[in-house]
Amino acid sequence: MSYNTFGQMFRVTTWGESHGPAIGAVVDGCPPGVALSEADLQPWLDRRRPGTSKFTTQRQEADTVRILSGTYQGRTTGTPIQLLIENTDQRSKDYGEIAASFRPGHADITYHLKYGARDPRGGGRSSARETAARVAAGGVARAVLAALVPGLKITGYMVQMGPHGIDRARFDADQIAQNPFWCPDTEAATRWALYLDQLRRDGNSVGAVVEVVASGVPPGLGAPVYGKLDADLAAAMMSINAVKAVEIGAGMAAASLTGVDNADEIRMGPDGPQFLSNHAGGILGGISTGQDVVVRFAVKPTSSILTPRRTITTTGDEVELITKGRHDPCVGIRAVPVGEAMLACVILDHVLRDRGQTGGLRGLIG
Amino acid sequence: MSYNTFGQMFRVTTWGESHGPAIGAVVDGCPPGVALSEADLQPWLDRRRPGTSKFTTQRQEADTVRILSGTYQGRTTGTPIQLLIENTDQRSKDYGEIAASFRPGHADITYHLKYGARDPRGGGRSSARETAARVAAGGVARAVLAALVPGLKITGYMVQMGPHGIDRARFDADQIAQNPFWCPDTEAATRWALYLDQLRRDGNSVGAVVEVVASGVPPGLGAPVYGKLDADLAAAMMSINAVKAVEIGAGMAAASLTGVDNADEIRMGPDGPQFLSNHAGGILGGISTGQDVVVRFAVKPTSSILTPRRTITTTGDEVELITKGRHDPCVGIRAVPVGEAMLACVILDHVLRDRGQTGGLRGLIG
Amino acid sequence: MSYNTFGQMFRVTTWGESHGPAIGAVVDGCPPGVALSEADLQPWLDRRRPGTSKFTTQRQEADTVRILSGTYQGRTTGTPIQLLIENTDQRSKDYGEIAASFRPGHADITYHLKYGARDPRGGGRSSARETAARVAAGGVARAVLAALVPGLKITGYMVQMGPHGIDRARFDADQIAQNPFWCPDTEAATRWALYLDQLRRDGNSVGAVVEVVASGVPPGLGAPVYGKLDADLAAAMMSINAVKAVEIGAGMAAASLTGVDNADEIRMGPDGPQFLSNHAGGILGGISTGQDVVVRFAVKPTSSILTPRRTITTTGDEVELITKGRHDPCVGIRAVPVGEAMLACVILDHVLRDRGQTGGLRGLIG
Amino acid sequence: MSYNTFGQMFRVTTWGESHGPAIGAVVDGCPPGVALSEADLQPWLDRRRPGTSKFTTQRQEADTVRILSGTYQGRTTGTPIQLLIENTDQRSKDYGEIAASFRPGHADITYHLKYGARDPRGGGRSSARETAARVAAGGVARAVLAALVPGLKITGYMVQMGPHGIDRARFDADQIAQNPFWCPDTEAATRWALYLDQLRRDGNSVGAVVEVVASGVPPGLGAPVYGKLDADLAAAMMSINAVKAVEIGAGMAAASLTGVDNADEIRMGPDGPQFLSNHAGGILGGISTGQDVVVRFAVKPTSSILTPRRTITTTGDEVELITKGRHDPCVGIRAVPVGEAMLACVILDHVLRDRGQTGGLRGLIG
Repeated sequence: MSYNTFGQMFRVTTWGESHGPAIGAVVDGCPPGVALSEADLQPWLDRRRPGTSKFTTQRQEADTVRILSGTYQGRTTGTPIQLLIENTDQRSKDYGEIAASFRPGHADITYHLKYGARDPRGGGRSSARETAARVAAGGVARAVLAALVPGLKITGYMVQMGPHGIDRARFDADQIAQNPFWCPDTEAATRWALYLDQLRRDGNSVGAVVEVVASGVPPGLGAPVYGKLDADLAAAMMSINAVKAVEIGAGMAAASLTGVDNADEIRMGPDGPQFLSNHAGGILGGISTGQDVVVRFAVKPTSSILTPRRTITTTGDEVELITKGRHDPCVGIRAVPVGEAMLACVILDHVLRDRGQTGGLRGLIG
Repeated sequence: MSYNTFGQMFRVTTWGESHGPAIGAVVDGCPPGVALSEADLQPWLDRRRPGTSKFTTQRQEADTVRILSGTYQGRTTGTPIQLLIENTDQRSKDYGEIAASFRPGHADITYHLKYGARDPRGGGRSSARETAARVAAGGVARAVLAALVPGLKITGYMVQMGPHGIDRARFDADQIAQNPFWCPDTEAATRWALYLDQLRRDGNSVGAVVEVVASGVPPGLGAPVYGKLDADLAAAMMSINAVKAVEIGAGMAAASLTGVDNADEIRMGPDGPQFLSNHAGGILGGISTGQDVVVRFAVKPTSSILTPRRTITTTGDEVELITKGRHDPCVGIRAVPVGEAMLACVILDHVLRDRGQTGGLRGLIG
Repeated sequence: MSYNTFGQMFRVTTWGESHGPAIGAVVDGCPPGVALSEADLQPWLDRRRPGTSKFTTQRQEADTVRILSGTYQGRTTGTPIQLLIENTDQRSKDYGEIAASFRPGHADITYHLKYGARDPRGGGRSSARETAARVAAGGVARAVLAALVPGLKITGYMVQMGPHGIDRARFDADQIAQNPFWCPDTEAATRWALYLDQLRRDGNSVGAVVEVVASGVPPGLGAPVYGKLDADLAAAMMSINAVKAVEIGAGMAAASLTGVDNADEIRMGPDGPQFLSNHAGGILGGISTGQDVVVRFAVKPTSSILTPRRTITTTGDEVELITKGRHDPCVGIRAVPVGEAMLACVILDHVLRDRGQTGGLRGLIG
Repeated sequence: MSYNTFGQMFRVTTWGESHGPAIGAVVDGCPPGVALSEADLQPWLDRRRPGTSKFTTQRQEADTVRILSGTYQGRTTGTPIQLLIENTDQRSKDYGEIAASFRPGHADITYHLKYGARDPRGGGRSSARETAARVAAGGVARAVLAALVPGLKITGYMVQMGPHGIDRARFDADQIAQNPFWCPDTEAATRWALYLDQLRRDGNSVGAVVEVVASGVPPGLGAPVYGKLDADLAAAMMSINAVKAVEIGAGMAAASLTGVDNADEIRMGPDGPQFLSNHAGGILGGISTGQDVVVRFAVKPTSSILTPRRTITTTGDEVELITKGRHDPCVGIRAVPVGEAMLACVILDHVLRDRGQTGGLRGLIG
């Protein structure tokens, strides 16, 4: 991944600032002949859209996506697809003070140091608004995957808010879309609502853990040793705003396991190898096994909060800063559809790369 | 990162199988005029070398590195540097059974599925032996960093073996090289020795957590939004054999923090901004802050163990498999110098990329 | 160069079809702090704009470029710059017959074969309209070069139309912008006008040779052996629509020279080495010498002509085809600003790449 | 193409200096399961090998290639293939004077300027010796093409030496390997022998034009608009030492054609579209048509000659230089197998890229 492009064969380049006229993505290398219209993309954007509950930023954005190129008569042509999303609610008056000082925990200071200047309006390029373009591109990836890998399914949800995790015993996939937290455990969701509401009223924010899972992934995806599927997933997830950690399968907990426990034993199933567990998260040696690909990532709390924090100004003065404006008290919530989008893009990229190198042939067992 | 190459400007391509005649790395894009000889690289390889204690594989490899190109009169010329390490101890008789069946938790099955065949001798390309080439390349990166960023220092160590973590209060950097575990806490090291010895005799293995830190990193490294410094670090570490999770700074724990606690507050120090904490792990918005860059990764237990595990053969028969041979009971130990090498390569790559785009100029504060 | 992106550090991704709503380019990796506004780009687009004389297509396009991202307060921020050009004159009724048959000499048939379908309106992605996006990106490159390499100057002109070349003895740079052919030889321009007018009335078209020259190029640009400056220039020029050959310096004529004649002998000038000739076209071993970089390319005649040509339909029927519509009788004319733009982009890319690897240091002589 | 790597999916990284211990290439992304041994590669290297006639350098190199990785039991495994060629005849005493001064027309001065120093022994990295690694990599590409595109055939030959071209009417493919010039016209070959012998005895050298042709190329290869097949071919050929121009099909002559003449008219043949001519050189819009892909390139005369030429030393003194040593009087001769190798690599890369994006499906006609 380099600059603002990710992917090797399915390549996504995003552009745009929070308070510029528009943001967008160019999707290049897309297979031709795939049915695609704006109606296929909009539902994914609606899931990430701000202002849908009191638990997300109150910024109002329609997030209407337009396809400016790369399709003809409702199908992809194999040429680059420009996805454009206009910014409609850019109340930059909210951000006056931000231009003069650096929010602690925010990219303000590093953009300033690296580039010598920055667009302070809404965080400019470092705004989470950029992730709308990822979600649009992910929608294209999903449309292609639906054509090329019919059984594949991608699901994201939150498994932890602040210190409060879900109870895996109560996991109910049908509940994910029924609460504002993409939470598969309704009891946890109820607790989270109370917890987050209090934090919000305190002018505070909190972190979260998101899990994204792809089922129906064909075996054989991934290009060892530096284009490993998990290496690309790690980069993809870590590139999302505010992400500080990425886990595959057992993740950090793999450190505590013995070899006896960690071994995902194998038996022969009706359709080939069957694994008795999935500590590997569907990836061995950087290549998919055919099991569910399981990725988790930690999202830090929003740094723009109403509680005063010590910082400095661009002129080097020490001040206390309160960040007014419209911010997500738990930015992890809206990271769920973003994580799904990145997972879709990375998997499709590897489907194409694998097809290129191997022709999609698979080694026989039995 | 693509196939067997990583990096954009400082590019490393590794090649070679565990039991082929040799392994190696081509380092391309190296700045010219840097003092470099084999003597600069060998110490790093010696740190990763197998067979140095009873806690690592008993395979005997001199791991002598030769520079075949890219230097003249003891200095780099700017042309590609071929680093070659001959394999000398390839007792492939150890691996007979492995050819016919798939070790649970190992890349055997995925290589077979993807490529239709695999080199089973010692794991072929999926062997941890590949990491020797990374360490050699990392040695080149260190030599260049010593010239370009004089104050930069990279340190790696283990912070957890199985369920047993270190006590940060007893952290003593001087102890790291004094025990076979790169452990900064001597009391932990003593406990780990007993623990691992028992596991080894039980024919079992265990995971670990490694932490690598770069201090003296200049601010401004990293290319948002997909070439973020942390995104590249995540990919680099996740590409190391057996790694299942990568954390930056607070990592997974960031999920439990509130915005008030997570904010690394800023004051003016004598030389510019000074942060009062480092939950960010030295990276904000994908760009280095100038603080220590802190990366942790979890290494799963070695899958080649003497305890029988259920698996299948290439002909689809269900069997129980014991992996004889010479294996690391805790492969995390030897991952320490590998993590350091990857950190060195990624940072140097970003030093060059930043210098290319910005000329190395930094925004002023005050 | 891959898909729709070219460049390594200064990366340009173009998108859009001839008759879609818009075309554009994302410019990524641009150095920060460079003064840039739409007014800096528009003049270059105006040079390439159709409909300015009877010798170019009568399609009317304002070719107004908008900067949607990547600048703030009139300066680049180091983030991706989206350049958008709306298509305003898309008379697609002109292209009805083209959808059903393949113009001989045109990309119609290859897009159909590769992608299974194509956007036939105005040639879709294969239209020369795509080059407007290159010119816009080239404008950004020029603005950056003006800041980083002040003395650098890029000049393009036509040196041959059909069989009629210029007389180098009459070369007058001031005349280039004074005739509709970017011709430095006014006598040739007068002859070309008569010649082309006749061809146009005959429903025919003709090829051309364009020369683009960069003076004030610093020595040391180019990354042997596959990122050679001339290799990148060759790819850049060959990627322009209708180009069939690229020459550097003496070009094809170098084949006829002896080593004695071809040697560009060197003397010491007041500011360093001085070459007595420039058969090399400013590039030796893939690296710039400091002399003028001289590139020529041949543009084939427009394939859309009013003279009937034999071809087949998408249903495999043999037909004779006349291409009505608005086409350039000599598309080489409008290739002049495109060649300049590509030269600017490639040189800037190498300035940044060189600065990244070497820090811009130059070896001393004397 | 970047630094010392070319190709996107079939990626070749070469390394090594003329007088270092060895040179070589890492071939990455190779499809698995392809029969490959050193015996498949050696014949191609033997064709390029120096010292085979009085018309090439008298340096004696066995050019024995060894495969160090990436194959198992005689087949590719999909992992990187290291090809190593030892340098055996490094008489660096020949090159004493070259270290102190810059050969006119040679990369000596540009390497010095860019890198601050250079390996002067035999030209170091800028030596044509590097092309042996290309030929080895091309051998791998040929083996893969033989498996994936059975009818494909690649043929290279010289069509011009100095001012003396071949007579196309006497073209006899069977003669190409029967003379030391890869000349398809025996009468021309006889004349060339006399001509070159005289030049050699005069201490002079001369340029040449090489043509390489691929027949049996499937339609649909090439990725517009910057990964066009011809753009990649142009870069590949221009990256060969001493090449100054690249032509596709009609090449520079396309400039002189009218649209009526240039149109390669199309009829329906028994197996699909049939073109009545091939001015396009098998490529339209950057995508292969299925016709022969025809590429020509001009090679400048060797700059190392025995005739004194004016130049300067590294200390800035003006001198006259004679280059003693063993040099090719017409380096174009040995460029023939190199051009073939590059053509093979580029075509295979595009076969894999096309298969990745489109799955190899082709649009129907009729």
